[in-house]
Amino acid sequence: MKAYALLGGPKINWPQKMITQLKAAHNAGNFFVGVDRGSLLLDEAGIVPDLAIGDFDSLKKQELTSIESQVADVRYSSPIKDLTDSELMLRAVFEDYHVNRLIVLGATGGRLDHELVNLFTFAQPGNKKWAAKTEIWDRQNLLRFYLPGKHQINKIATYPYFGIANLTPCQNLNIAGAQYELRHFSAGYPQVFASNEFKHDTNEFELSFDKGVVAVIFSKDLDRYQNIR
Amino acid sequence: MKAYALLGGPKINWPQKMITQLKAAHNAGNFFVGVDRGSLLLDEAGIVPDLAIGDFDSLKKQELTSIESQVADVRYSSPIKDLTDSELMLRAVFEDYHVNRLIVLGATGGRLDHELVNLFTFAQPGNKKWAAKTEIWDRQNLLRFYLPGKHQINKIATYPYFGIANLTPCQNLNIAGAQYELRHFSAGYPQVFASNEFKHDTNEFELSFDKGVVAVIFSKDLDRYQNIR
Repeated sequence: MKAYALLGGPKINWPQKMITQLKAAHNAGNFFVGVDRGSLLLDEAGIVPDLAIGDFDSLKKQELTSIESQVADVRYSSPIKDLTDSELMLRAVFEDYHVNRLIVLGATGGRLDHELVNLFTFAQPGNKKWAAKTEIWDRQNLLRFYLPGKHQINKIATYPYFGIANLTPCQNLNIAGAQYELRHFSAGYPQVFASNEFKHDTNEFELSFDKGVVAVIFSKDLDRYQNIR
Repeated sequence: MKAYALLGGPKINWPQKMITQLKAAHNAGNFFVGVDRGSLLLDEAGIVPDLAIGDFDSLKKQELTSIESQVADVRYSSPIKDLTDSELMLRAVFEDYHVNRLIVLGATGGRLDHELVNLFTFAQPGNKKWAAKTEIWDRQNLLRFYLPGKHQINKIATYPYFGIANLTPCQNLNIAGAQYELRHFSAGYPQVFASNEFKHDTNEFELSFDKGVVAVIFSKDLDRYQNIR
């Protein structure tokens, strides 16, 4: 089962035509989660999520009542807590609902403390087991997460660039067969190798490393008009 | 001397009324740097930067000609390089122009590989010496960077929240006197403590740690109307 989770990040950062795509995915029977304000945003788009998680502090009483009356599984988090709402969501979708792939939306833009919590979720040892099953999508980026080993990374149409970021200290990180190669890189802190590209004659490269958690950030530019919005 | 650097991030992420503020700062004699497309964006706003740095690949020929004819110091970077454009900029402003405070704008939004390079600049050992002199500003966030020691953090008007992020492994990180306290936290990977607040009866808290590089992310929400844009 595939799941889609919508967090409360600003709409300007949503992938283009996201609601249309989500409605099709919902009609096809995929699992939907709203995290905090994301529950309301799904509801407003006509998609009743299967699960809603959050402290719902930013919702008006009638908005929360609407969620509670429609959503089958509503879980309340405490603002003073060990796990973030996103972590509670990961645990619920993977452990209680046994989904095998998760697309996270609304995770970027707006407040950077929130965004960085989301982007660095898999740096946390307790979350690593879900890294390979989760993607983050926004308007210009698609992120995948990797654990140590050798990985063939395939080009995704419409994303001409990619960046490699070790979210944790890493050992023996290699990028082979891409425009800019990297060999035997180790660091005790995160580093981002931005603006790499696939070679003209191939749609794949090899990423390998011995230790750490690494994100591949597939990205695209917007045209000037879109950029100005 | 104080400096303002504009990078090429999307305008939607600029602080509100940024151009008005930058014009006033320019008229007051502060130093201005454009990084890559940021040079053009300053020029378009009627602010000729003192320094322009980048590979300028994304500029049309006449745009680059306009920069070259007006800007006193234009420095060309190579797309295949050890230092990013932002790092070249830091080196230039602090070492060549001896500024003592730098505000970085246009560093967030858009492509996340670019944004993370900017946010994690001071995780790099070679850049740490400039951490305490640099701030990153965007529409909803103001970031300051700290090295080991004991720091009094003062509230900034209009930013009700703050998050603490160790950008590198850290030792004995403490947050004392804030809404949510943290004691003797150590980790071998970045972690973000989001959505903290100042206590009602004080406008300061104490941040201390023995090892690592830590960002304080001051943040604010937008109202619903702005959020929907």
